[in-house]
Amino acid sequence: MKKNKEILVTGDRPTGNLHLGHYVGTLENRLALQDSYDCFFLIADLHMLTTHGDRVSELRDNIDELVIDWLSVGMDPNKSCFYLQSQIPEITELTVLISMLCSVSRVQRIPTLKEKISDLNLNENYSLGLLSYPVLMSSDILIFNASKVPVGEDQLSHVELARELARKFNSHYKEVFKEPEPLISKNSRLVGIDGQSKMSKSLNNCIYLSDSEIEVNKKVMKMFTDPNRTSADIPGRVEGNPVFVYHDIFNSNKEELKDFKDRYRKGKIGDVEIKKSLAKNINQFLDPIRERRSKILKNKGEILDIIFEGSKRAREITKNNIELIREAMNLYTSSSDYK
Amino acid sequence: MKKNKEILVTGDRPTGNLHLGHYVGTLENRLALQDSYDCFFLIADLHMLTTHGDRVSELRDNIDELVIDWLSVGMDPNKSCFYLQSQIPEITELTVLISMLCSVSRVQRIPTLKEKISDLNLNENYSLGLLSYPVLMSSDILIFNASKVPVGEDQLSHVELARELARKFNSHYKEVFKEPEPLISKNSRLVGIDGQSKMSKSLNNCIYLSDSEIEVNKKVMKMFTDPNRTSADIPGRVEGNPVFVYHDIFNSNKEELKDFKDRYRKGKIGDVEIKKSLAKNINQFLDPIRERRSKILKNKGEILDIIFEGSKRAREITKNNIELIREAMNLYTSSSDYK
Repeated sequence: MKKNKEILVTGDRPTGNLHLGHYVGTLENRLALQDSYDCFFLIADLHMLTTHGDRVSELRDNIDELVIDWLSVGMDPNKSCFYLQSQIPEITELTVLISMLCSVSRVQRIPTLKEKISDLNLNENYSLGLLSYPVLMSSDILIFNASKVPVGEDQLSHVELARELARKFNSHYKEVFKEPEPLISKNSRLVGIDGQSKMSKSLNNCIYLSDSEIEVNKKVMKMFTDPNRTSADIPGRVEGNPVFVYHDIFNSNKEELKDFKDRYRKGKIGDVEIKKSLAKNINQFLDPIRERRSKILKNKGEILDIIFEGSKRAREITKNNIELIREAMNLYTSSSDYK
Repeated sequence: MKKNKEILVTGDRPTGNLHLGHYVGTLENRLALQDSYDCFFLIADLHMLTTHGDRVSELRDNIDELVIDWLSVGMDPNKSCFYLQSQIPEITELTVLISMLCSVSRVQRIPTLKEKISDLNLNENYSLGLLSYPVLMSSDILIFNASKVPVGEDQLSHVELARELARKFNSHYKEVFKEPEPLISKNSRLVGIDGQSKMSKSLNNCIYLSDSEIEVNKKVMKMFTDPNRTSADIPGRVEGNPVFVYHDIFNSNKEELKDFKDRYRKGKIGDVEIKKSLAKNINQFLDPIRERRSKILKNKGEILDIIFEGSKRAREITKNNIELIREAMNLYTSSSDYK
C-alpha cells in the first residue's frame, strides 16, 4: 500500500523542545499528511552540528525530547518513518556528490543562510558546514527522491535549491530525480508571547508543548498585548495583537471570540478576562498532548526502537537510491558491478 | 605484522595516464615506502568530480589506466591497499562532520585551491565541491587515522589543514586523531619537455609511463633546451636545461653525463647526441615498466578484483574509525548503542 503513496520528507533539528509555533507551522500539517503520503520524518542531528557543535552533550536528550514531542502530538511511527540523519550515510555521500553541481555563490544567496550568519554574528567567520547546510538539506530530500516537502514560506528557498540541483543532476548525468514540490503551510510563523514576530527558543518567548497547566497560565498572563491600553476601558487594537492571534487559533468558540474582540475594540473588557480564556483554551488544546506524553514517558525505552527501526527502513530506500545515483554518474555501484 | 606498521595514505585522481613527473614526484617514493608502512593508495574518483564532472564517461577507463600505471611501476597490491574513494562512504560522512570545524575563509586561503580556481578561469563561479576539496582530502587522511602522508612541497598546505582539523576535533570533542605528518618528496615537480615548470597533461608536455620507445624518441628529440644555442658550437647553459634535468635523473652513467655537461658548456657537443643518449636512458628506465604493463594487460580482469578487494579491506578500518568518531561527537554509533 505504502508503495503507491508519494514520498514526503520533512523534519526538525534536535535542538530543544517543540513549542506552539512548531505545532502551528508544521506539526499540525504533518498529522494531516501522514495518511495521504509515505512520510519520512527526519531527526536532523547533522544540521544541529552546523550551529550547535558546542552542545553535542545535549544531543541524545534532545533527540529523545523531539521524538516525545512528535509522538505526543499524534505523529505515528506506525504510519510514518521516524529516522536519524546521522544513521543514513547515503545523505552525506549525496551531499558531497551534489555539492559539485552547486556554486558557492548560489548557496550564499539563500536568505535563511544569510539570516543565520547574521543572527549568530559570524560575519566572515562561518564554517564550511554552515555554508553547506542548504545542500545537505537538498540531499535530505533528494536521497528519498521525495515528491513533496512541507515548508513554511521562509523555507521555500531550500526546496528551490533542491529542485534546481535535481534538474542539474538530471541534465548533467541521467534522469534520476523528481523535482520535489513544496507544500506551503498556511501559518508558517507564530508570534512569540512577547509580541516578537516569531516564537523561538532563543528569544525565550515560547509556550512549549510540554509546558504544564501552571506554566501556560503564567506565560499567558504575562503575554504582550496592546501596549497603549494601560487600563481596561481604553479601546484596544485586535489585529496583530498576540492574545488575539492565539485566540484565533486555539479558541474554537467563535461567538465568544467575536464578543471578546468587539468589547476589546470598545474598551469594555479587561486583558485578564481574555487571557484567562486563552489560557483555558491552550490548556484544553494541550491536554490530550500531555496525556500522550505521560504515557510515552512510561515507555521511554521504546524511543530508540522507533528511531533505529525507522532508520533501518529509511536505509532500504536510501541504499537503493544511492546506487541509482552512482550508476547515473558512471561511478561504480557497490553491488551490481562487482561481487 | 601489518598491524604494527604505521598507516600511510596517498593517491591520485583518475584523470589520465601517469607520466615521468608523477614517477619522480611520488611513485618512486611509494615504492620505497610500501615496505616500511601500511600503505593505502587512494583512487580519488570523487576528487576527479571537483574539476572533471563533465568527463565522467572516461572515469572507468581512467581508473583502469591508473591501476595499470601503478602496477607497472611496481606498486604491489599484496603489500599495499589499492582502493576506490567512492566505495568508502565513511570518507564523505567524515567530510561533512569536519566541515563544521573548518571556516570558509580557512579553505579559501589554501594556495592550491586558489591556483585551481585561477587555472580554470572560474572567478567567483566555483562549486561548493571544489571549495570543499581540501576538507575532503583531510577526510581521506583522517578516516584512516594515518600517521604519514607523502606529498610534494606544493601539497603541504593540504596536510597542514588535515593536522589542524585533527587538533580541532580532538580539542572540541575527544582525542581521536593523530596529527598526520607530511613526508616531503625531494623532487616534487619535474619540468615539462617544453621547458615549462611542470610536466602536466593539460600542458601537453609529458612523457607518459605508457609511451612506446618511438614516442619517447620523438618527444625527447623535440625537447626544449637552451634557446640561445642555435648551433652545436655555441656554449650552452646546463643548469635548469630540461635535457640535463632529465639526464640527472635517468642517466646513471655519471661520468658520461659529466663529459656531456663539460662539452655542452664549451659548445663542443650537439643537442642530438645528448638527446639520443637521454632517449636511450629513459627507454631503459621504462623497459621493465613496459614489460610489467604488457603482462597486466593480459589479465585486465584482475584490476577490478584488486580495487574491490582493497576497498573491502580499507572499509574494515574506516567503518571502525567512523564509529570512534561518532562516539567522540556523542552521535549514535551504528552498532554499539542499538542492536
